[in-house]
Amino acid sequence: MTATPPPETGPVELDVAGLHTSLRDPALESMNFLNEIAGRYPDAVSFAPGRPYEGFFEVEQVHTYLRRYERYLADERRLPPDEVRRALFQYGRTKGIVHEVVARCLEVDEGIHADPEALVLTVGCQEAMYLVLRALRADARDAVLAVAPAYVGLVGAARLVDMEVLPVASAPNGVDLDDLTAALSRARRAGLRPRACYLVPDFSNPTGVSLDLPTRRALLELAAREGLLLLEDNPYGVFDATGERLPTLKSLDTTGQVVYLGSFAKTGFPGARLGFAVADQRVRTADGRTGLFADELSKVKSMVTVNTPALSQAVIAGKLLEHGYSLEKANRREIEVYRDNLRRMLDGLARRFPAGSRPRVAWNTPGGGFFLVVTVPFRGDDALLEHSAREHGVLWTPMRHFYEGESAADRIRLSFSQVTPEQIELGLDRLAALIREQAG
Amino acid sequence: MTATPPPETGPVELDVAGLHTSLRDPALESMNFLNEIAGRYPDAVSFAPGRPYEGFFEVEQVHTYLRRYERYLADERRLPPDEVRRALFQYGRTKGIVHEVVARCLEVDEGIHADPEALVLTVGCQEAMYLVLRALRADARDAVLAVAPAYVGLVGAARLVDMEVLPVASAPNGVDLDDLTAALSRARRAGLRPRACYLVPDFSNPTGVSLDLPTRRALLELAAREGLLLLEDNPYGVFDATGERLPTLKSLDTTGQVVYLGSFAKTGFPGARLGFAVADQRVRTADGRTGLFADELSKVKSMVTVNTPALSQAVIAGKLLEHGYSLEKANRREIEVYRDNLRRMLDGLARRFPAGSRPRVAWNTPGGGFFLVVTVPFRGDDALLEHSAREHGVLWTPMRHFYEGESAADRIRLSFSQVTPEQIELGLDRLAALIREQAG
Repeated sequence: MTATPPPETGPVELDVAGLHTSLRDPALESMNFLNEIAGRYPDAVSFAPGRPYEGFFEVEQVHTYLRRYERYLADERRLPPDEVRRALFQYGRTKGIVHEVVARCLEVDEGIHADPEALVLTVGCQEAMYLVLRALRADARDAVLAVAPAYVGLVGAARLVDMEVLPVASAPNGVDLDDLTAALSRARRAGLRPRACYLVPDFSNPTGVSLDLPTRRALLELAAREGLLLLEDNPYGVFDATGERLPTLKSLDTTGQVVYLGSFAKTGFPGARLGFAVADQRVRTADGRTGLFADELSKVKSMVTVNTPALSQAVIAGKLLEHGYSLEKANRREIEVYRDNLRRMLDGLARRFPAGSRPRVAWNTPGGGFFLVVTVPFRGDDALLEHSAREHGVLWTPMRHFYEGESAADRIRLSFSQVTPEQIELGLDRLAALIREQAG
Repeated sequence: MTATPPPETGPVELDVAGLHTSLRDPALESMNFLNEIAGRYPDAVSFAPGRPYEGFFEVEQVHTYLRRYERYLADERRLPPDEVRRALFQYGRTKGIVHEVVARCLEVDEGIHADPEALVLTVGCQEAMYLVLRALRADARDAVLAVAPAYVGLVGAARLVDMEVLPVASAPNGVDLDDLTAALSRARRAGLRPRACYLVPDFSNPTGVSLDLPTRRALLELAAREGLLLLEDNPYGVFDATGERLPTLKSLDTTGQVVYLGSFAKTGFPGARLGFAVADQRVRTADGRTGLFADELSKVKSMVTVNTPALSQAVIAGKLLEHGYSLEKANRREIEVYRDNLRRMLDGLARRFPAGSRPRVAWNTPGGGFFLVVTVPFRGDDALLEHSAREHGVLWTPMRHFYEGESAADRIRLSFSQVTPEQIELGLDRLAALIREQAG
């Protein structure tokens, strides 16, 4: 059971059986599989990746946003030139350097009044999830609940810290609160400590479903009653198609139940890899003082990535500054694209599978975001995805990647964020051909 | 023992006793303490931080390097404009996008012939250390050896994965190989599996000491014989002051014992937060296939940071392209600054504490890098550092931050990378005043 074979027998060979269990976990394989498959079928129409629309990307924007942030440091923050240089080039504050800009953005777009000191800027929202789970997982009894189907990144981060993920049923209004209560009781009876519940309240990945307002309030009350943290992940909230955005959990939170997880991957751009956590919970330290949960996350971060690249922070802050601290304004054109695409998807599905027709195909109707879910009369698994890509030229995501078990065999996720209107029509034609072939 | 106090009693308050043990560990406190103290005494001369020289930073370089990489993608890699945009803006390959450029640099500067597929670009070398330790730590028996005194970031990463760090004694030639053999035996008798040994062979942080060539060869032989991986961390190798660089362990490695950990924090700039691992070890996977250790690290990375910011990779690659893939060329001026500073430090110490004089003060003579170690006739601890900053206006680093125990109470680390000649003279005057006061 040593890491390496006996000596003097040639090059080192490791055995995956001797490495951390996460490396044999389907959650980690999933992410890789989903990341790579698009590359293997470059000519297929892809409803697979949760990537933002590329049509408005321009390389020059990076330079523009960077210069905007430089001017902000020099003119608004009154930093002398050597301090501007230092901010961009040197090691920086572990919790980040653009916390005030991001806090202002949260106020403008989300009605969240966050103490900038309670923010931790991270390398994507993924690092924020990792930091929170690492801090909360003290021993094998600590578990995290997650509204299922859950984003695979949450499950993967939990695997890295050997933390059990307990599924909570979703519902048409977002989350089944009775099931959440039941899951908490079950966990506690089993000797577990449910530390937090993870969910995407707005246009969830993978289902596109949102929590309605009464459910948001009821969930917050339940969390306060049960002493449960809520991990609110909100990458898609800005991409509302209804014109009536609902308040985030964090903006309704009066007891500090919510750790808010933010991402600029869809609203800024993915290549910046910028995310953050708002962690304003108070923490009693060993010497009896009180600190912020953000400062505990910062300690973990100092041993994972030291600090978030200043360049990434500068470019995204520049984008926010250019648009009056508002991601809604910065994404005006993108919001329209996603809204149009959602309508085209729903109309296109309705035209190809009219009510009462065969094969029987159903889908949900999200109020925004990047995703919807289609239920098909057969198994929508990885093998079928390969067949679909090869024979029909269309990519999608098997829902089983978002479940622990097998319960979603007949559902597939369609992403409509990175496709043109022409690709939507062509892709839906191809998908319909696949469905007729499989159901036939 | 729940995460939160009983409900309906007001805002959430967590107790650090219920969070992960790493948050109560001195290693994590150290990093924060060392990161913050410079900020508390802005007017002190600082021999504390391991930061690169700032004199040649220019904001315009970021734009220049970024454009250089854009041209490389368009002209040398022949990517059409939409793919150049995609490379900079979208999600990218988990192992990184500039692997070929970095592999070429390793060949030019280090004589390391690395398969680009065996590289994983990371958010600083810290993430690379974390990925390696996370992958290698399967259960409580897995331990990592580290040549002591060791970089605090290695210890911190080990804490996050609950991995024991076993110290190996250093020696004037870098590492005490007899102690390494003894540590291996002791660990195995205790039922532990020593998976790897971490060291900085060139101009180590914190001691400045390097392994001589015979020790490099003997260490590689010992590692092959014992089936031990070597984690070679090389942030300072380029900053040689002798004119005779020694070969890296990786360039001498014929059996795949070495996982090479690279950093562009000192040779590029810290704000890019770019590092990498070369992990060309073969791994037997569960289905009997053989992969690269780099691909296992990539799976872990997909759940920590998803991928390394494209911007950071682009800017550092641009810097490499501008200088013929050579960090030595790119750092020609910096190498001279550090060499001059090292000479000034050694001369300045010798002038202030001539041979045979009192108080008795000793120091080592590194062949390059950022650091040297001074032995003083009293305790050089955090309390004295506060006093030194407040009363004498000079900062340095207590060596006890790099030890598990108390054995280095009389030694302090002096960094000479971020100071001017004037600051060196002033700082050494102030240090001499402190030493005379404490010894008096």
